[in-house]
Amino acid sequence: MLGSALNPASVAIVGASENPHKVGGRPILYLQRYGFRGAIYPINPGRSTVQGLRAFASIADTPQAPEVAIVAVAGDEAVKAVEACAARGVRVAVVMTSGFGETGAEGLAKQEQMVQTARRAGMRLIGPNCQGLANFATGMVANFSTIFNELEARDGPAAIVSQSGANSQAIYTLLHDRGLSARHVHATGNEADVTVADLALAVVSDAGVRLVLLYMEAIKDPPTLAAAAAEARRRDVPIVALKAGRTASGQKAASSHTGALASEDRAVDAFFERHGIWRANDPQELVRAAALYVGGQRPRGKRLVFLSNSGASCVMAADHAESRGMPLAAVPKEKLKAVLPAFAAVDNPIDVTGALLGNSGLFGGVLPLVGEDGQCDVLVLGLPVAGTGYDVPRFARDLAEFQRRFGIPSALAAPQPAVREPFAAAGIAAFASEGEAMDALAQVADHAALLRRRAVPFVSIRARGVTRFLNEAESLAMLAGAGLPVIEHRLCPDEGEAQAAAREFGEVVMKVCSRDLPHKSDHGLVAIGVEDPAGEFRRQRERCLALGARFEGVLVARRARAGRELALGGRIDPAFGPLVLIGDGGIYLEALKDFRLLAAPCSEEEVLEKIAQLRVAPLLGALRGQPARDVRAVARMAAQLGDAIIKWDGAVASVDINPVMVFETGAVALDALVETTRGL
Amino acid sequence: MLGSALNPASVAIVGASENPHKVGGRPILYLQRYGFRGAIYPINPGRSTVQGLRAFASIADTPQAPEVAIVAVAGDEAVKAVEACAARGVRVAVVMTSGFGETGAEGLAKQEQMVQTARRAGMRLIGPNCQGLANFATGMVANFSTIFNELEARDGPAAIVSQSGANSQAIYTLLHDRGLSARHVHATGNEADVTVADLALAVVSDAGVRLVLLYMEAIKDPPTLAAAAAEARRRDVPIVALKAGRTASGQKAASSHTGALASEDRAVDAFFERHGIWRANDPQELVRAAALYVGGQRPRGKRLVFLSNSGASCVMAADHAESRGMPLAAVPKEKLKAVLPAFAAVDNPIDVTGALLGNSGLFGGVLPLVGEDGQCDVLVLGLPVAGTGYDVPRFARDLAEFQRRFGIPSALAAPQPAVREPFAAAGIAAFASEGEAMDALAQVADHAALLRRRAVPFVSIRARGVTRFLNEAESLAMLAGAGLPVIEHRLCPDEGEAQAAAREFGEVVMKVCSRDLPHKSDHGLVAIGVEDPAGEFRRQRERCLALGARFEGVLVARRARAGRELALGGRIDPAFGPLVLIGDGGIYLEALKDFRLLAAPCSEEEVLEKIAQLRVAPLLGALRGQPARDVRAVARMAAQLGDAIIKWDGAVASVDINPVMVFETGAVALDALVETTRGL
Repeated sequence: MLGSALNPASVAIVGASENPHKVGGRPILYLQRYGFRGAIYPINPGRSTVQGLRAFASIADTPQAPEVAIVAVAGDEAVKAVEACAARGVRVAVVMTSGFGETGAEGLAKQEQMVQTARRAGMRLIGPNCQGLANFATGMVANFSTIFNELEARDGPAAIVSQSGANSQAIYTLLHDRGLSARHVHATGNEADVTVADLALAVVSDAGVRLVLLYMEAIKDPPTLAAAAAEARRRDVPIVALKAGRTASGQKAASSHTGALASEDRAVDAFFERHGIWRANDPQELVRAAALYVGGQRPRGKRLVFLSNSGASCVMAADHAESRGMPLAAVPKEKLKAVLPAFAAVDNPIDVTGALLGNSGLFGGVLPLVGEDGQCDVLVLGLPVAGTGYDVPRFARDLAEFQRRFGIPSALAAPQPAVREPFAAAGIAAFASEGEAMDALAQVADHAALLRRRAVPFVSIRARGVTRFLNEAESLAMLAGAGLPVIEHRLCPDEGEAQAAAREFGEVVMKVCSRDLPHKSDHGLVAIGVEDPAGEFRRQRERCLALGARFEGVLVARRARAGRELALGGRIDPAFGPLVLIGDGGIYLEALKDFRLLAAPCSEEEVLEKIAQLRVAPLLGALRGQPARDVRAVARMAAQLGDAIIKWDGAVASVDINPVMVFETGAVALDALVETTRGL
Repeated sequence: MLGSALNPASVAIVGASENPHKVGGRPILYLQRYGFRGAIYPINPGRSTVQGLRAFASIADTPQAPEVAIVAVAGDEAVKAVEACAARGVRVAVVMTSGFGETGAEGLAKQEQMVQTARRAGMRLIGPNCQGLANFATGMVANFSTIFNELEARDGPAAIVSQSGANSQAIYTLLHDRGLSARHVHATGNEADVTVADLALAVVSDAGVRLVLLYMEAIKDPPTLAAAAAEARRRDVPIVALKAGRTASGQKAASSHTGALASEDRAVDAFFERHGIWRANDPQELVRAAALYVGGQRPRGKRLVFLSNSGASCVMAADHAESRGMPLAAVPKEKLKAVLPAFAAVDNPIDVTGALLGNSGLFGGVLPLVGEDGQCDVLVLGLPVAGTGYDVPRFARDLAEFQRRFGIPSALAAPQPAVREPFAAAGIAAFASEGEAMDALAQVADHAALLRRRAVPFVSIRARGVTRFLNEAESLAMLAGAGLPVIEHRLCPDEGEAQAAAREFGEVVMKVCSRDLPHKSDHGLVAIGVEDPAGEFRRQRERCLALGARFEGVLVARRARAGRELALGGRIDPAFGPLVLIGDGGIYLEALKDFRLLAAPCSEEEVLEKIAQLRVAPLLGALRGQPARDVRAVARMAAQLGDAIIKWDGAVASVDINPVMVFETGAVALDALVETTRGL
């Protein structure tokens, strides 16, 4: 239904204005200017024509039921207009008027009333408090943004879907600055009914769309966004999303702006990553790689060749590549020597030197050798200086030929707009700076790699109801049942069994077992290297009972040999479903926040990649006097935990395993805390 | 002498060309176009005039000795030309020709010959292989850059001094894009004689210069750069420097570009910080805050107020501020309520909402309240959208009035160039993005804070000659002598004394003492928690002798109580002089590279700031079941160590203290390794 709303047979404007710069006037201006071929029905009881079109006193008077109706009247009038639209059989109402959910309880009640009216009639509602929809392929510009008056719109391969109207315009402007156009510019405002996810799903189905850019302050409907992402992946349409409210300050501001609920930001990362959505941190990052995306560039890796007429650019490019983790590709040095000046330093970055001024064929000599060598995934040409005496059009042709012939995504970096123009015209993404060009190529490469992973659908599990903690022994048993290795232990009901277990294990750790004491160490109820097991048993039982907690025995565990401590966790996020955590263990987890989240189910390989991103990662490799740790063993445990969380189907709300001890070979859970939602 | 070279009475061009687009022709074009008022002497034995000027057959024939001579002839001719210049009494020769030090040993020999010739005559030499000098205040454009032909130069408040000619042009272009002009654009090429530091010193003495931008691949002359920075500080002229070769890849590329020697990059950071030079990572960062600097903006802090007509901009700005460590200032909410729409969320960021379209006075209402409140150090106005219906000139006036009246540095963020223009015209720094505006203000604020610190001159100490390690006992004694707390210990020559020491201390650590075994633990010669001191003594002595090392006794130390381990170090850097290191201790230092360097002498406060920047910093605060650590005690040790390194005056090349144990109160060196350069 939203798809048809983007190409309707007719649009009505309730509150149509003769003034093309009022909210009720601008859509009429745009519909006419941008060539909408359907019927336009201005609704205004006080006028017979509006902006040269026949006007109608009410929506009931239009010759046919409008497919789309814009509501541009205020307050209670808007509520009534939505009712009239629903009665008339309108399919989509775009409520531009503000003063509803964003203003407080009273406004929210009116907004809810409109949604109920729409739902009963099977009508979809965009907004309220929204700038509206714009489709420049059909001229269906039900949108009051000023920007289409400032910067003439053209149909193009991008689609912008934004909660915020102002930001939809900012993104549109940034694309325009890069010489790119958007077919779709939609702003959803309060999202009382239709969300960014719904419109994302609608635009990815448009065959003319080759890139989707999203702005959100809350992900209100993860399953629909995941469905949009799945369809986009099927059509090879990349989605880049800016989810604002990354920080506590941002979430506070978002909550006052759109009432967005806070979400753990790394869960957003995990959700996006699972569904192949690239996350941008600001509007500039959102559009940064647009030219590469719409040019169909899908790098096979990110081994970079950097080529320039400036040694300084080469040095700065090498710095940038190393700090961003882009490896410099090997280049065929002997062959390059034959085409470069004798004093040129032949390595990557390749500096053809100022000799370019006398020899415009230098790039054309170097590029095929790089292409044939097969080591280069992406290439950046840096031209910090070019002007009189430089054959820039030839450089552009040479680079375009290289990109075409070898299928190696390429970019230009040049601060002078006049130098960028011939490259852009030849189909080369052109950037003002080397760093931006490299960042854009790295992004497109990483995004392509993400989209080459197996597609995994959204897992809809919820943890419902009141939760309670299992005791340590029950928790460990749950993990063991799911196939995770846990430390050898006995739950001992009395001193004698504790002594027997200690004799069997040698060095032991003793921990009280009580569902009422999930954080035992806070109460001094974890003893390491116990010399008197019976005495320790008595001490723990007494302390437990003194705390008013149920005493369920003492767990005597074999003391683990030395290794590196990590932390594993699993939980069901209310928005994003089952998640797995991998991080630095012990107190480091809380204090340093050195962890990553993954959407479950996740593979060992996916977990290994996250482990490699931890700050603590270097300590897991071989170090002076210490062997490398078996990170694969802990990755396997993480994957098993993810599978278990799904298998438990909402019965387990969360699992904390801290620490997992990782050895040279193998890994084992030393401590576990399971939070259940119902009896098991 | 270099100062006069920027405003000479006469300039000769050896190898003068009629073609204004050849190296020997372009300076003549520019000298005339940019209004140089001194004499121009083209030197060309084959012509009577060059570009309309009388030409001379040789430099000996000029009516007076040229103050500056450009050398634009090749190879041996250039060497001869430098000789002729020296003989004629030229004060500064600008050797543009390439093919010298950058091409290999033969070229380097010729280059050295030119330098010797110049030195003997008291002539300074710029280059070779350089684009030359340009001063647009005097029209002295002894420079063959193409960019002054592409983008007409104007005199302005910035100065660019760059090793790289291409990069000097890129920086010039980026400034130009921001509507700013440079008076000086100098490129030093091979720096056989004159370096970036020399020209930096020359330009900071020009009263018209309000900002200095540097590009270097090596800091060849730290004392002169420090002197330039001191003079710049005295004149309130900020210096921003791009030192490329930050990474191993970058240093490799720099070594092939200009033969730059590698330096520890964090030592560069320490050097810049000590001398109040702000470091940029790329050309965009180099120019980012230029408008604020030349506008004389020196924020007193970085408490930010963000103001916008877009809620989305507010959310993204809050995210950006938090991630970059800019606190959001408190705002006078009650007073703001009176001037804002009822439904506006009154907090910082302040969203005046789309109501701005109907009320152009909203910003003008808010700004004085923010100014009077006194909590705001810097302010950003975000206008992601403005066009028909927005009174942008009024917004610009209101913001300029706020900046002027309250002395609060302010910036605009707007993607539309047409929106930025009236602000720039009103003296407000205007940026395309919110993030860039905030980053620029934060930079100027942090830089101003750096320049408010006490000025400390460059400390010229070198560690000369062969070095050797002291043994542990000697090393600890050096530290104790410098006032640093060290762990209580005895150097024991025999088993009996070891036993006596162990009895005295209770729990002990035993370590062999041998100047030949600086890394004792690699050889199993550190024992913790010893039960049999005599046996351990024998074991260590035997092992030491078996390794062929001199046995100098066994050090028996009191075992330290639990604390957090950090690492301290000191060394004399061959380029930058005495440095102090503070970092995470134990194996973490090497594996995680979690450390910072400071130039010595350094204050406790300066060290505390570096400790707060360590990744491990959160673990030094109070955590569950663990008190906060006495970071001031370790900062005091670092400051003492820096003073000691200076006092030792080159006799100590390096000191490693790893770990320093930091307690709730106090800190103590547990392990020390001193490298001396001569007998002590």
